[in-house]
Amino acid sequence: MISEFEKLERASVPALDEILGVPFKVLDDGFVRVVDYMGSDSSIVQAARVSYGKGTKKVREDEGLIRYLLRHHHTSPFEMCELKLHVRVPMDCWRQWIRHRMANVNEYSTRYSIAIDSAQKTKPEEWRLQATSNRQGSEGNLAVKQGELFTMREIELQSLARTVYNERIEAGIAREQARKDLPLSTYTEAYWKIDLHNLLHFLALRMEPHAQEEIRSYAATIGNEIVGRWCPIAWFAFQDYLFGGIELSKFEIELIAKLQAGDRNGARSLAETYGIVPPAGQDLKRNIERDEIEEKLRRFGIQPPWSEA
Amino acid sequence: MISEFEKLERASVPALDEILGVPFKVLDDGFVRVVDYMGSDSSIVQAARVSYGKGTKKVREDEGLIRYLLRHHHTSPFEMCELKLHVRVPMDCWRQWIRHRMANVNEYSTRYSIAIDSAQKTKPEEWRLQATSNRQGSEGNLAVKQGELFTMREIELQSLARTVYNERIEAGIAREQARKDLPLSTYTEAYWKIDLHNLLHFLALRMEPHAQEEIRSYAATIGNEIVGRWCPIAWFAFQDYLFGGIELSKFEIELIAKLQAGDRNGARSLAETYGIVPPAGQDLKRNIERDEIEEKLRRFGIQPPWSEA
Amino acid sequence: MISEFEKLERASVPALDEILGVPFKVLDDGFVRVVDYMGSDSSIVQAARVSYGKGTKKVREDEGLIRYLLRHHHTSPFEMCELKLHVRVPMDCWRQWIRHRMANVNEYSTRYSIAIDSAQKTKPEEWRLQATSNRQGSEGNLAVKQGELFTMREIELQSLARTVYNERIEAGIAREQARKDLPLSTYTEAYWKIDLHNLLHFLALRMEPHAQEEIRSYAATIGNEIVGRWCPIAWFAFQDYLFGGIELSKFEIELIAKLQAGDRNGARSLAETYGIVPPAGQDLKRNIERDEIEEKLRRFGIQPPWSEA
Amino acid sequence: MISEFEKLERASVPALDEILGVPFKVLDDGFVRVVDYMGSDSSIVQAARVSYGKGTKKVREDEGLIRYLLRHHHTSPFEMCELKLHVRVPMDCWRQWIRHRMANVNEYSTRYSIAIDSAQKTKPEEWRLQATSNRQGSEGNLAVKQGELFTMREIELQSLARTVYNERIEAGIAREQARKDLPLSTYTEAYWKIDLHNLLHFLALRMEPHAQEEIRSYAATIGNEIVGRWCPIAWFAFQDYLFGGIELSKFEIELIAKLQAGDRNGARSLAETYGIVPPAGQDLKRNIERDEIEEKLRRFGIQPPWSEA
Repeated sequence: MISEFEKLERASVPALDEILGVPFKVLDDGFVRVVDYMGSDSSIVQAARVSYGKGTKKVREDEGLIRYLLRHHHTSPFEMCELKLHVRVPMDCWRQWIRHRMANVNEYSTRYSIAIDSAQKTKPEEWRLQATSNRQGSEGNLAVKQGELFTMREIELQSLARTVYNERIEAGIAREQARKDLPLSTYTEAYWKIDLHNLLHFLALRMEPHAQEEIRSYAATIGNEIVGRWCPIAWFAFQDYLFGGIELSKFEIELIAKLQAGDRNGARSLAETYGIVPPAGQDLKRNIERDEIEEKLRRFGIQPPWSEA
Repeated sequence: MISEFEKLERASVPALDEILGVPFKVLDDGFVRVVDYMGSDSSIVQAARVSYGKGTKKVREDEGLIRYLLRHHHTSPFEMCELKLHVRVPMDCWRQWIRHRMANVNEYSTRYSIAIDSAQKTKPEEWRLQATSNRQGSEGNLAVKQGELFTMREIELQSLARTVYNERIEAGIAREQARKDLPLSTYTEAYWKIDLHNLLHFLALRMEPHAQEEIRSYAATIGNEIVGRWCPIAWFAFQDYLFGGIELSKFEIELIAKLQAGDRNGARSLAETYGIVPPAGQDLKRNIERDEIEEKLRRFGIQPPWSEA
Repeated sequence: MISEFEKLERASVPALDEILGVPFKVLDDGFVRVVDYMGSDSSIVQAARVSYGKGTKKVREDEGLIRYLLRHHHTSPFEMCELKLHVRVPMDCWRQWIRHRMANVNEYSTRYSIAIDSAQKTKPEEWRLQATSNRQGSEGNLAVKQGELFTMREIELQSLARTVYNERIEAGIAREQARKDLPLSTYTEAYWKIDLHNLLHFLALRMEPHAQEEIRSYAATIGNEIVGRWCPIAWFAFQDYLFGGIELSKFEIELIAKLQAGDRNGARSLAETYGIVPPAGQDLKRNIERDEIEEKLRRFGIQPPWSEA
Repeated sequence: MISEFEKLERASVPALDEILGVPFKVLDDGFVRVVDYMGSDSSIVQAARVSYGKGTKKVREDEGLIRYLLRHHHTSPFEMCELKLHVRVPMDCWRQWIRHRMANVNEYSTRYSIAIDSAQKTKPEEWRLQATSNRQGSEGNLAVKQGELFTMREIELQSLARTVYNERIEAGIAREQARKDLPLSTYTEAYWKIDLHNLLHFLALRMEPHAQEEIRSYAATIGNEIVGRWCPIAWFAFQDYLFGGIELSKFEIELIAKLQAGDRNGARSLAETYGIVPPAGQDLKRNIERDEIEEKLRRFGIQPPWSEA
């Protein structure tokens, strides 16, 4: 028998209980609030220990175990914790959010009810410029002066959209159809429930610098304000291993080893073999993977073997 | 050994091969086209037979087996067939579509590329009125005369939205932000891949009369034009059992049995017990479940025991 | 704003808190105990109401709403409740259990620890006979006298298996390999976490008379002892609609309507059209669907049009 | 319009067509054979390009794009390919296999049919010893002489188990119960269908040196013999990035940077801060994470700052 038959109390986390129901503001009119949760850091340990059975002595501290599980991607114990949020998000942002399929969702219905009368507004200083370094991001901001014009245009458009919506509703047009031309910036609300493993995966993708600023704000709030209170050990482990770490490819490992051994020529010809640099004598053309490798080497303070010393 | 070791050919369905890549038009500018598929009616049978092993003689025809599996919700053999579609859908409709989580999706990215320059337009005769009988549907249409005004307003709003979008793009505003006020009616495109079991579940929900007209059009096209060609036996079984059928509750079964036995008073007091009608002498108040029961009884030609004969 | 910003307390269910951690015995040495849970009947209502938004007045009682959601398969609000169990189950039974994919699992590892020293034993009176009416069930029992022999043989086999396992372990053979010939009757343990919607689906399949007796015992315990305490309104609705109900096909609806209208000949020829009975004059051959239809008609007290009155 | 409306042909892969249905032998009596598939390397590209829309010029080769997607964990395009296998596996191994939930399964039913008359046998030279370095693996082999005894005992046990099974069947005991004491080594068969993203995840976990030898044999066969033929570009990328690569934690990145900068003392005190080594002067106690770090540093040819030079 590995189980003890004592009566149990539910796992609870006082630090999270304290903020239950309290909204954390995000963007101009959005929020995130915890509605309910199940489990805690110690539930992760408890689930892992069932796998180890009675054979396991409690040699390691719980913290050590959680960190071990996380860095080895033993994900199932993290699925034993569950978080339920109430969120308010622009529909455009929600379109990205909902792509995470391993969650439970109840969204405010604009078939059933009048659409929420709020759309995300952009301040003159908040208009972002298209990134030049990558096709899908943003980089820097529009001059405030020019931003003022776009902010005014936005108000004009959003208010026409709302007026048209209201006209339709007043004429008796069905809500499910009246909403069809609302702007993507219109706020929606939802209950969103997810387990800790899938939540950390969501956060890893959405806190990442390439994620769009809007969803990044929500992810940062969920991570820092909520997960940090709820499962602080798992949260630190996440930052040390999953979020703060990097991956090295087979080539990168070999490259560093050669450089470490002082074999700069060997490193360079390895790079040729993998197609990262052209054969000696030819011009370097742009290569996305090479850029990525250089960025990693830079973090170690290593000079790429193909750049001039 | 239950397996025969002969070399296999891939299952293929000539009737579907014929329309591979051909778009079926839906709404004013949407479409659905088959990009690829795996399996056929006979793959359902093949998967079911692995469960039955060598012990099974082929007593029943394949058709009988497929119909048996479907009406008994033995769903796993239907998961062995897979369909990949390319669809073009208004974002508002896509918001409902994407709620089906058991599918694989690649959507056109308006972070990466300029938004598709097309929004769903409503003709003067297509404006639908809010249903009075239920809070979330539509019922009947606006007078065409009045519809003309709303169609003009729609054009005005959609074209302002596009103009503002274009102004932003031209000023160098990031695509991911420029799109924020596009109307929900803007078309998007996606590859959508799903197995037959989950597809039939999608169709059961989205072909249903209470589903919104827009997604109903897509569902009907997928069902009638595509599944009907791909797995015709499963498709007919779906219409006979899942889509064309009804469910009866424990109460409804007992009620019909009592009425059948001529025990009208017993039926009436059973209905009281279940809270479907108030105790004799009190007024009937509106009760949604009673409405539903009456509708079912009507299909059998049975008079409810609480209505005057 | 549809949300009220008051601080919340976690939903809790005193009736379930009372049995938290307490094992319910199943089979000869198995159990089920609740380790944790999230939500209650009122969480279902809360999630549904977010969809309806502020537009909804609380006209219906919570009970009415839950019953409405359940019988209309509006499943997402039921996903908002989550249950975590600790179970002890023979591996053979666990093989069926684990086929339900929408759950979170941590199982006792016999790679990591010595296998649990317990295997499910069969009493002389518990040996079941192969069903003759269907290929996969059981029906009736072996005579006790004969059962005694099989029980003794079982003990002999199980104890040889354990002896061999122990010999391997003592010789230093790896646990992951030593276990390879343990009988399927060996008990395993697991934490198993699932949301209420998926749990009800599990129960509908596994409480059903055709499910194997062993898993049926677990399902009945989970349903009656646990779900009944946890979400009693949902549990009653489940019994009235999902579990206690039946489905009628398009054909069955039409058939009943014709019989109800007194058109016995029309009913009979409808049955011919659907291939349920052969053309008049030919002999009835066995037909599984016809058997199923007759069983349904019997529940209503309706005589099939193809049987002699 | 991003779509071209030409008629399509199904993606096919001649190298895979050639082996369709042909079993690859695994273990003493197991196999893996491809029954069907959907998609190819080019389907991954096609799905990714829908996201990029018309804005994308085909600057990169398909190979570059697939490798980019894989190393950046843009997983959704890999979900567009689907593989259906027929496998024959000992139940003990299947217990691990089935834990991968994102797959479709139809397994041979021993309720419905007589259990397959084959159990995995262990040759005298195949008995593995329990690992001393980790609690769940194996390491080295038992002496063949001693192995002979265990092989004989295995035969004795497996044949008693089969005899008992047959006796039960002959006495009319239900198949679902007769099977209860079959050894875990008994072979089962199944159809198993999975998309390429989830398959690569399965392979990453199950080809890994810590995975149990039996499932590792199946994974290696599926990877090398099947995926290598089916989607060769994705397969090479998998080996370069996912399977052949490593992850570095935040600490490990900082540690390497310090060592690279020649700051051996700084590196050592960083390790103290992170709890990897005890404060100077204290004895090193065993620390699993430190062992892991040393192993990574060794691959780069870097001496840990806490070991004597």
